[in-house]
Amino acid sequence: MSSTSRRSRGRRPGDSGTREAILAAARGRFAASGYDRTRIRDVAADAGVDPALVHYFFKTKDGLFAAAMQLPLRPAEVIGPLLAEGVSGLGERVLRRVLALWDDEDYRESLLAMVHSVTAQPEAQLALREFITRELRGRLASVIQADRPELRATLCGSQMAGLLVARYVVGVEPLASLEREEVVRAVAPTLQRYLEDPL
Amino acid sequence: MSSTSRRSRGRRPGDSGTREAILAAARGRFAASGYDRTRIRDVAADAGVDPALVHYFFKTKDGLFAAAMQLPLRPAEVIGPLLAEGVSGLGERVLRRVLALWDDEDYRESLLAMVHSVTAQPEAQLALREFITRELRGRLASVIQADRPELRATLCGSQMAGLLVARYVVGVEPLASLEREEVVRAVAPTLQRYLEDPL
Repeated sequence: MSSTSRRSRGRRPGDSGTREAILAAARGRFAASGYDRTRIRDVAADAGVDPALVHYFFKTKDGLFAAAMQLPLRPAEVIGPLLAEGVSGLGERVLRRVLALWDDEDYRESLLAMVHSVTAQPEAQLALREFITRELRGRLASVIQADRPELRATLCGSQMAGLLVARYVVGVEPLASLEREEVVRAVAPTLQRYLEDPL
Repeated sequence: MSSTSRRSRGRRPGDSGTREAILAAARGRFAASGYDRTRIRDVAADAGVDPALVHYFFKTKDGLFAAAMQLPLRPAEVIGPLLAEGVSGLGERVLRRVLALWDDEDYRESLLAMVHSVTAQPEAQLALREFITRELRGRLASVIQADRPELRATLCGSQMAGLLVARYVVGVEPLASLEREEVVRAVAPTLQRYLEDPL
């Protein structure tokens, strides 16, 4: 789509302010309505652009949310390929990949900035919670074969969240300085048990 | 100790304001210096009372901290008897007891009030973190027979924290409505594994 191909709505892909206007509108909608009830066409209307332009910049709603939260990656694009390989060994694969992201300094700073921003802004918490429930827990639950997949995915989430907060947000030793592969070895069996063992 | 037996320091056990004055001094010290470096005699000096009076009201530093946080129980008096029975079955015992406390409405409200107060006051976070490290993790680590007791106790803490936040603070379903014994059955093996299995 070239910047000269559209004339009607005023804002075009080439506009340097267009992307920011969409993100500002998205932040307002996510804060007011949460993640589930925010629709791309409402964000587009708030920003005064065509919905196609939102898709052009951000592809999907979870991509728009990740950009609004200033995350360098869509969580779904990280977890999707891991889930596609099935439940066998999934605890280890997910843990290794998520720890690798958090161990990367740039990514960790983005994630910590998001944590602190959401902690300081209660109105952003519903959207983050709904996003995690739908895009992470929901995707994980969908590949679990055992009974009570939602509970199992929630238990995995509780251990992952506690681990990430302890290691990266609070920085509790000796966990914070442990080699990534040692963390994987210690914690992956917990996730795998939640994924497939009798509860 | 009767209210007429001491005259020198001005404040006496019978003073209705004495206990509150000590707690106000304690909150100031804990916020300024954290838990580890706060001494009962400094709190007493700030409150203008004899240190014996602080011991009279609150017995120990962890009792003073619990009262300053408006907790109805000292965490150490909850966890102490459980640890005294040894590592065998400890994951299940700790989990059942801690969940019973959080399932009790009065206690849960006190704990949630503490969580929200500490979230809103960054200056209170160091003290809470040091308190948890020393009085909960330190006590747990001291009964672990296997290698790397600090790491093992930290891993237990990461799962407990993630579980409590998910079930009680955020209220994630289906975990929030699950019967207590079902939670014990699902999560106790995780704690027990961290306590004694090869990592």
